[in-house]
Amino acid sequence: MKIVKVDTELYHVPLAKPVEDAIHGVQREFSLIVVKLTTDDGASGMGYTYSVGQVGGTSIATLVKDNLAPLLIGEDPRRIEHLWQKMWWALHYVGRSGIAVFGISAIDTALWDLKARVAGEPLWRLLGGHNNKVEAYGGGIDFDMTIEQLLQQTQGFLDAGLRAIKIKIGRDSIAEECERIAAVREFLGPDKKLMVDVNMKWSVEKALRAVRAFEPYDLYWIEEPTIPDDIEGHRRIESEGPIPVASGENLHSIYEFRTMIADAGISFPDADISNLGGVTALMKVAHLAEAYNRNLTTHGIQEMHVSCLAGIPNASLLEIHAFRVDEFLIHPLQIKDGYAYASDRIGHGVEIDWEKIAKHRIPMNS
Amino acid sequence: MKIVKVDTELYHVPLAKPVEDAIHGVQREFSLIVVKLTTDDGASGMGYTYSVGQVGGTSIATLVKDNLAPLLIGEDPRRIEHLWQKMWWALHYVGRSGIAVFGISAIDTALWDLKARVAGEPLWRLLGGHNNKVEAYGGGIDFDMTIEQLLQQTQGFLDAGLRAIKIKIGRDSIAEECERIAAVREFLGPDKKLMVDVNMKWSVEKALRAVRAFEPYDLYWIEEPTIPDDIEGHRRIESEGPIPVASGENLHSIYEFRTMIADAGISFPDADISNLGGVTALMKVAHLAEAYNRNLTTHGIQEMHVSCLAGIPNASLLEIHAFRVDEFLIHPLQIKDGYAYASDRIGHGVEIDWEKIAKHRIPMNS
Repeated sequence: MKIVKVDTELYHVPLAKPVEDAIHGVQREFSLIVVKLTTDDGASGMGYTYSVGQVGGTSIATLVKDNLAPLLIGEDPRRIEHLWQKMWWALHYVGRSGIAVFGISAIDTALWDLKARVAGEPLWRLLGGHNNKVEAYGGGIDFDMTIEQLLQQTQGFLDAGLRAIKIKIGRDSIAEECERIAAVREFLGPDKKLMVDVNMKWSVEKALRAVRAFEPYDLYWIEEPTIPDDIEGHRRIESEGPIPVASGENLHSIYEFRTMIADAGISFPDADISNLGGVTALMKVAHLAEAYNRNLTTHGIQEMHVSCLAGIPNASLLEIHAFRVDEFLIHPLQIKDGYAYASDRIGHGVEIDWEKIAKHRIPMNS
Repeated sequence: MKIVKVDTELYHVPLAKPVEDAIHGVQREFSLIVVKLTTDDGASGMGYTYSVGQVGGTSIATLVKDNLAPLLIGEDPRRIEHLWQKMWWALHYVGRSGIAVFGISAIDTALWDLKARVAGEPLWRLLGGHNNKVEAYGGGIDFDMTIEQLLQQTQGFLDAGLRAIKIKIGRDSIAEECERIAAVREFLGPDKKLMVDVNMKWSVEKALRAVRAFEPYDLYWIEEPTIPDDIEGHRRIESEGPIPVASGENLHSIYEFRTMIADAGISFPDADISNLGGVTALMKVAHLAEAYNRNLTTHGIQEMHVSCLAGIPNASLLEIHAFRVDEFLIHPLQIKDGYAYASDRIGHGVEIDWEKIAKHRIPMNS
């Protein structure tokens, strides 16, 4: 079996409404880079990565087209570890992270889709098949919302079947954050999980002051309290403060996760197949986390991640993110009573309505 | 003063002859991404980055054109720290390393050129002006050479005025490496510096076995003995072996250098303005290294780096790399009796003959 065709497509997908966090500002759209693989015997696989706004979209697509696709032609798509290493080392000088890894991610996910389809297996079972039911949470991108709007959003998450939610924080005023968190906690009652996400905005001393002030609100985690480069800072916030720390959406290799788990000791590693190197890299991080007695949570593209978390024994919460392709999915993710359910279709089971999304396609220079 | 124009150009520059190392294989060309800035009052600055072969070239150029250049228009080019942070955070989700940092590097170097030109100063003096004379070494990319060819190359470096050289290693057989190193050491005599470069090829235990075997040859450093992600591995090779360690050409942030210097404790941090974030980031690494009592060496683009090392008090060796733009330089770098001399022209003083290099220009999609 040989790969004979690699198609790369770029889309700019508008968000239903603009969203805002403490670092990335107002976001109105995201870039979706899709890879479709075809083999000589007609097997196929599809994967994608995405980026905030238009940042890096054309660059990732260009990299996939010019530098990654040629490495795949003629190769057996089932030898994913061989192809992953080939891509990693071919791009290494401009790689190890960032755009190169986003490109590898889209391809690797397509390879796993193809592998599962060839095996006639749904991805979640191919990855271990631990439990097809994964606890999910609603990830608000709601930095700009009033408290009233926050509570409306919370009700919307509950109505959608979610029982855990996360809100964005990162203001100068910790008192103001306490007020917002207290309002959401009161609305939710004591039994539902509530998380907060700083999007890297704070210094370590500020984050420590904040988590001490947040203690009464029983937060399940505080996410990205400071920059991902500060391992010692994360260690202090996790070990000196009363709230467990989540981090990982800005980590782009198994090595960065090793440091964040082993040296910083964070409670909730947070991985994303679209920016970490695909299913291959996420599964390695999942197993690393398991060896450290940690459960793994995921960032974004819930329709894909549900199959990864369903495969492993150490799944934490699945994020239901605001950057959604739901309206273009033939089989949108099913959520009920706080849980999301992995697809039983072969492959990852994510089928995009290509005609419907076509209007957002950006022509690529060939 | 405001930036009104940002031009991005891509070139594929052929090497005089193919070169080879242990990891990147045979290399026949490199990609050169050039940025030219113009202000409303006619001031200008030029910077560039480069990549191995054609890997990432189009992607870096696309990123600069689509996502970085728009951030600069209308900004005061002299507020480099403001612009650097603006670029870093705008690209952060796809950044922190890799292609995003290559793009920032080209722009930052152009900003420093412009700043120095506006100030009427040569860059080396603007950066501190410590000593315009920097000890240089010839960096062979010679993995495929016979011992006879290695000695011819060594003679060529000596003829070019160099008094220190580095050769590529990384074979399976340590005995074979000893034979090659011994031959070059014998040829050079005892007083000239000799370094070796593994290009990340070895495991930690293999590198330790090798440096113990290399002890008789008085090596000045061993470079990149293993992957840059393995900080503890570097610490062991540096502290348990008899040969100082150099590393850094694959590190892309001040944070990665901090870890490599503070935690791994390597003797020779090796920075490159074209992949670390420009002059701004290199100077921070230089000062960090100084605080750790380390001298800084540089990787590649010697015509630029000579001005950086000439500025600081803790300069180690300047690498004279095989990826050269010399034939397109109006004032090629001057080397004499083992030293390179920083340009006294205003700005970085690197002037490219645009007509001469035009034949290698790759049209960019606009």
